[in-house]
Amino acid sequence: MVLPLLTAAHRRFIIIALIAVLCVFYFMSMGPEDYYSSAKSLSTGQSKDSTSVEQTSDTPLLLGSAPAQSKPSPSFGNITPHDVSSPRRANATLVMLARNSDLDGVISSVEQLEAKFNRKFKYPWVFLNDQPFSSEFKRRVSVLTDADVSFGLIPHEMWVQPDWIDEGRAQAGRNMLVKEGVIYGGSVSYRNMCRFNSGFFFRHELLTPYKWYWRVEPDVRFYCDLDYDPFVFMEDHDKVYGFTISMPEWAPTIISLWSIVQEFISEFPQYVSPDNAMDFISDDAGDSFNMCHFWSNFEIADMDFWRGEAYTKFFDYLENAGGFYYERWGDAPVHSIAAALFARKDQLHFFKDIGYKHAEFAHCPQGKQWREGHCSCNPNDNFDFAQSSCLRNFMRLDDWMFG
Amino acid sequence: MVLPLLTAAHRRFIIIALIAVLCVFYFMSMGPEDYYSSAKSLSTGQSKDSTSVEQTSDTPLLLGSAPAQSKPSPSFGNITPHDVSSPRRANATLVMLARNSDLDGVISSVEQLEAKFNRKFKYPWVFLNDQPFSSEFKRRVSVLTDADVSFGLIPHEMWVQPDWIDEGRAQAGRNMLVKEGVIYGGSVSYRNMCRFNSGFFFRHELLTPYKWYWRVEPDVRFYCDLDYDPFVFMEDHDKVYGFTISMPEWAPTIISLWSIVQEFISEFPQYVSPDNAMDFISDDAGDSFNMCHFWSNFEIADMDFWRGEAYTKFFDYLENAGGFYYERWGDAPVHSIAAALFARKDQLHFFKDIGYKHAEFAHCPQGKQWREGHCSCNPNDNFDFAQSSCLRNFMRLDDWMFG
Repeated sequence: MVLPLLTAAHRRFIIIALIAVLCVFYFMSMGPEDYYSSAKSLSTGQSKDSTSVEQTSDTPLLLGSAPAQSKPSPSFGNITPHDVSSPRRANATLVMLARNSDLDGVISSVEQLEAKFNRKFKYPWVFLNDQPFSSEFKRRVSVLTDADVSFGLIPHEMWVQPDWIDEGRAQAGRNMLVKEGVIYGGSVSYRNMCRFNSGFFFRHELLTPYKWYWRVEPDVRFYCDLDYDPFVFMEDHDKVYGFTISMPEWAPTIISLWSIVQEFISEFPQYVSPDNAMDFISDDAGDSFNMCHFWSNFEIADMDFWRGEAYTKFFDYLENAGGFYYERWGDAPVHSIAAALFARKDQLHFFKDIGYKHAEFAHCPQGKQWREGHCSCNPNDNFDFAQSSCLRNFMRLDDWMFG
Repeated sequence: MVLPLLTAAHRRFIIIALIAVLCVFYFMSMGPEDYYSSAKSLSTGQSKDSTSVEQTSDTPLLLGSAPAQSKPSPSFGNITPHDVSSPRRANATLVMLARNSDLDGVISSVEQLEAKFNRKFKYPWVFLNDQPFSSEFKRRVSVLTDADVSFGLIPHEMWVQPDWIDEGRAQAGRNMLVKEGVIYGGSVSYRNMCRFNSGFFFRHELLTPYKWYWRVEPDVRFYCDLDYDPFVFMEDHDKVYGFTISMPEWAPTIISLWSIVQEFISEFPQYVSPDNAMDFISDDAGDSFNMCHFWSNFEIADMDFWRGEAYTKFFDYLENAGGFYYERWGDAPVHSIAAALFARKDQLHFFKDIGYKHAEFAHCPQGKQWREGHCSCNPNDNFDFAQSSCLRNFMRLDDWMFG
C-alpha cells in the first residue's frame, strides 16, 4: 500500500481530490434529466433573433462543430454505431417546416422523437413557416421538450416564385402535371417548399449557426429508441448525408433535370467526387437517371455540404433552369443527386436502426436492431426491399459486400 | 480541519470508506437504464407459471411489499408527489387485459406508457387474455420494454358465465338493454370482462405476487411524462385507489345494484369506513346512487384492498345477486362503490398529473403540471369539469378545500 509512505500534506491532498471526484460523481448520479436541469440553471441560452422567434428555454446551444475524429469507413452500409455514453455533442439541430394547421401532426412527430431520442440528447428544435406561427402553436410545441425551441419566419425571397420565372410557362407545366394526375402537380406552394428545401433552408438565420440537421416532418412515426447520437456518429465517420428510405421519383416531375445535371457535370467536372455514388442514381454510368433518390422528408445531414462551393453552384445552375417551377423538381432528387455526385459514396449513410414511417412507407429495423431499439413497428411492414425501393441500388455501392 | 488529528490507521480507514462511497456513486452514475441492465445480468428472474406464460426478461421482480411509511394526508386532492430520486420500488405491476386482435392498440398503449413512465421505472407487465396469446402478439409486445413481461391465460371459471345463472333471465336482461340502445347491452363477453375485472383479476396467479397495479387498456393515450413512482406515492400516502376520470354510469345497466349495496351495508355495517366517500357516490347521504364512478379503464390501486375481507364479502354478495349477467354491472361502479365505502375518503387519489385519454374522454393536466409533464394534450380537451364529469363530487369530499 503506497498511502502510508506519503506525507500528511499529500494525504490531505488525496482526500480533497477524492472528495472532489465524489462531487463530480454526485452530479453524474443525478441522471441526464437532472443534469440538464442543473445546466439550464447555470447558463443562459444563446439568443437567436428572427422575424418571428420565440426562445422557450435557456438550454445552452453548445455551438462550434467538433472535427471528425476518425477515418471514413469503407463499410458504410454496416457500421454499428454506439456512442451512448459520450458527453460530446455535435453542432446540430432538429428542424421542421410546418404550417399552423399542421399542429396535431407536429405535436405527434415531436412527442415521438423526444421520447425515442431527444429527451436524452436535448438538441434544439427549429420550426420554420412561411407564415408567422400562432401563439397556440408555439405554446403547444414548446411544452413538449426541455431543449431550446425557436420559431422562424421564412423570408419572402426564400419562399415565393421568383419574378423572373415565366408564369405562363410555369402554369403550362402545372397544367400538364395535373392532367397526368401527378401528386401536387398543380400546387405552387408545394413547388415553393421543394425549392426552399433544396436551396434555402440551410441559409435561414435560425439554421446558419448549425452544421448538422435532422429534418422532421409533421405526422411521421419514429418507432425505435435511438440510444446514440447520430450527429456525432456522422461527424466521427465523416458522413455527409443520412437516410432511411429511398425510392424512385415520378418521371414527369423532373423531365429535364438529368440533362441539366449532365450539363453541370461537363461544365464543372471538378466537383464530382472520384469515389461518387453514381451507381445509386444511374444504371448506365450516368447516361440516364434511374429516378432513385433518398426520401428527403427524413434527412440527417451536413448543412456545410449544402453551403459548400459544389452544391451552391449546382443549386444556382438548377435555379437558373427554372425547373422548380416549370416542372416540379423535388428537393429529394436534387439533394440525392448532389449527395451522390459531390460526396464520396462512403459519406452516405443508411440509418437502418432508425424506425421511421411517412405516409405509407416505413423502414422498420430488423433482428437485433429491432429488439434493441424496442421498436413498435411490424418488422414485416418494411419498404427496404419492396419492388419499388431503391435500397438495392444503395447496397450495390458497397463493393466488398456484394463484389 | 479534523483529519490531521487522526491516526494513520484512521486516515486509511477514511480513505477506504471514501473509495467505497465513490464506487457506490459510480454505480449510481450509470443511470437507471444501465443500473437495471446490470441488475438483469446479476440475478435471475423469478419464474412464474401460467397456462400460457412467457418470461421475456429476467429482471428481478423485487417482491415483498414495503409498508406505508407516512400518515394519511387529509389533502388528498392536492398532494404534489415528487419522489423521483428514490431507488425504493413498490411491489407493483402494470396489467392489461387484451385479445390477440387488439395488438395494434396494445402496442400503442405500451409504447406510450413505456416512454412516459416505465422506461425509467421498469415495472413488470402482465397481459391477460381468455384465449392463448399468439406468438406474434408476445413477440411484438415483449420487444417494447426491458421490463419483465408475462402473458397469462384466464382460467375458464374466472371468465365465463357461471352455470347457476338463469340463462333465460340473463337473455331477457340483454334483450332489454339492446332495446334501450345501451352500449354492449347484448354482449356476454363484455359481461364476462366486467365480472372478471370486478372480482377475479387480482386473484390470477400472475397477479397474486403483487400488491399494486396500474390497469392499462389497448388504444389509450398517455400524454405526459411521469417522473415519480405513483406506486410508491400510493404506498407512502396510504392510498388505496387512484383515478384520472370520473363520470356517471348508464342507469339501465345497474337497476338493482344500489339496493343490493344497501342490503350489504345493513348486513355488514362493520365494513363501512367511518370516514367514507359516500358523498362522491350519493347526493342524499346514501338513499340513492348518483351514478358517479371512477372510470376504471385507468386504475392505480391496491389489490390487497380487493383481496381483503370487506371487498371479498361485497363481491360475493353482488355475484350471488347475479347482476353481472342479469343486468350489466360494470367493474367501474362496483370498484368505485367499494372504494368509496370501505376505504377512507383520503385513501382515494385523483392523479391530476397523469394525462390520459380513453375513447373520447380525456384528462389533460393544467398549468404547471402540463408544462412540467411536457404534455402533448390540449389543455382545453379536458373532461374534469365538463357537464357530465363527477370530479366536482370528488372535490366536495375535501372539506378543508371547499368547506
